[in-house]
Amino acid sequence: MKMKNEYIRLIDEAVARIHYPAEPRGLYEPISYTLDCGGKRLRPMLVLAACEACGGSASDAMPQALGIEMFHNFTLLHDDVMDRADMRRGKPTVHNRWNESTAILSGDAMLTMSMQLMSKCRENMLAGVMKLFNDTAMQIYEGQQYDMDFESRDDVSVAEYIDMIRLKTSVLLGCACETGAMMAGAPEVTRSAFYRYGVALGLAFQLQDDWLDTYGDPSVFGKNIGGDILNDKKTYLRITAMDKADEHARGRIKSLNGVRSDEKVAVVRGIYDTLGVADDCRRLIESYLDQTLKELDAIDIPDEAKAFFAEYAKQSISRRS
Amino acid sequence: MKMKNEYIRLIDEAVARIHYPAEPRGLYEPISYTLDCGGKRLRPMLVLAACEACGGSASDAMPQALGIEMFHNFTLLHDDVMDRADMRRGKPTVHNRWNESTAILSGDAMLTMSMQLMSKCRENMLAGVMKLFNDTAMQIYEGQQYDMDFESRDDVSVAEYIDMIRLKTSVLLGCACETGAMMAGAPEVTRSAFYRYGVALGLAFQLQDDWLDTYGDPSVFGKNIGGDILNDKKTYLRITAMDKADEHARGRIKSLNGVRSDEKVAVVRGIYDTLGVADDCRRLIESYLDQTLKELDAIDIPDEAKAFFAEYAKQSISRRS
Repeated sequence: MKMKNEYIRLIDEAVARIHYPAEPRGLYEPISYTLDCGGKRLRPMLVLAACEACGGSASDAMPQALGIEMFHNFTLLHDDVMDRADMRRGKPTVHNRWNESTAILSGDAMLTMSMQLMSKCRENMLAGVMKLFNDTAMQIYEGQQYDMDFESRDDVSVAEYIDMIRLKTSVLLGCACETGAMMAGAPEVTRSAFYRYGVALGLAFQLQDDWLDTYGDPSVFGKNIGGDILNDKKTYLRITAMDKADEHARGRIKSLNGVRSDEKVAVVRGIYDTLGVADDCRRLIESYLDQTLKELDAIDIPDEAKAFFAEYAKQSISRRS
Repeated sequence: MKMKNEYIRLIDEAVARIHYPAEPRGLYEPISYTLDCGGKRLRPMLVLAACEACGGSASDAMPQALGIEMFHNFTLLHDDVMDRADMRRGKPTVHNRWNESTAILSGDAMLTMSMQLMSKCRENMLAGVMKLFNDTAMQIYEGQQYDMDFESRDDVSVAEYIDMIRLKTSVLLGCACETGAMMAGAPEVTRSAFYRYGVALGLAFQLQDDWLDTYGDPSVFGKNIGGDILNDKKTYLRITAMDKADEHARGRIKSLNGVRSDEKVAVVRGIYDTLGVADDCRRLIESYLDQTLKELDAIDIPDEAKAFFAEYAKQSISRRS
């Protein structure tokens, strides 16, 4: 096993080496722009680390690491069009810097390029890699659809919310871990335990995102605090608050729908505080952390590798940005 | 070999049997809506017919026929968003009937579903099928990008135009034919000749489309005649006319850019007539027909199969709708 940052360095180098045809520029420039914009490189890091944990070498799984990173960036690109988001990672989004047609078409090309990268494996592995990847992609689209559906609903349950983030976010982390294990030729029992580790990690990760959006430290978070509250986003915090609140507090939150002011953020957070939903959220995050550790325990990999993935899960839920 | 209409009937039945999950409806309804809207089923028909021509059975290649039809419909769906087209095949487009986010996301899902369908083949064929399909998809995005780039250029050459329609339209017909041959286990020499047949057919087909848009019979064409002229679209007819015209006629066409009237259509068509560009177009179509027949001649398949594909190419360039 290498250090986390060493995997990320390898990925950044490989991303920089991706070859794009020179023409048509309008198709390929937005793709390299998107990939070079950075990001945490979390998913490809999981691919490489899972491969090495199972006795493979990082280079065996690099095409798949890049494929999953390419796919992830494709979903961000198209999601940003759907959400009309102007900025991503501190830079203008593609539909903002170029135009919407460019964002749609370049995103389509990224999805196909991700398939090309995933396909770069031994022939006896190809069917398994394709099936996992395509099934995961379908779940992610379903998650995005549910996320959009939730915007116009006011009766979303916690169970529905968890299922939505499982689809939209977590299964890709599961897919990343399992694909890495596959590339090392790990047995089915190991691969599926890695998948479950990744899914639990993804749930903890997304809930940590939700928590940070309301309770993060503005000086380190990187985005404005309170964006979810401002946008009336049905996160775990809001859904739980609406469940626990009495009629008065529920009415107060509803009455602020559509309002966009700092005062709204303060009022809604005050209600969250009174109801203790931040603690509920932390407890749920801890329970998903426990699940990741339990899955790791059962995997037949060296202790050093277990420590790597356990440490990574712990860091994910204590991160501040 | 079966009759053309028999292949189309089999495809329509298989399309009707595609299973979509019930939820989320917002994701899957637009997909079945798009697939059920019909269309010529040209591409899947070529897959099945090429498979049978090479000694396979239509059912061997049905998943790939559906995969290519699904892919084709995905490109139409996203192209309609980019072109802001409100109607397709006499029905509202997806972004018109639902909304743009739905059109983007359902299109993405169709691309992944097309990959799932293409993957349904024997494991030793999978790598070849994937490579051909993904390479073709990338070419199609490049073609769409060039098509959009041409809108803001007034110096597009005939060679550039032919290359654009080769990428945007023709390679998918080549891919359809070659995939069908692959599914029958045909040798490389047969597969690549079928590919070239499909590409030449696609060029003839698209040029026939261009010709019909200006010279078709309004009572059978199905769309309004003159749409390309109204929209100043750089088709073969316009590019050739601009090449052949004297300064006066060229200026007259340019002066009508942006104008939308029946008179404009009549004036521009009058200039085309004087310059004889319809004849140039018919000659080019005939030369691509000759190429399809030459490719067929060299393929080692039964005469009955050759006659099927020759007949199909001839019909394509004499069609009136």
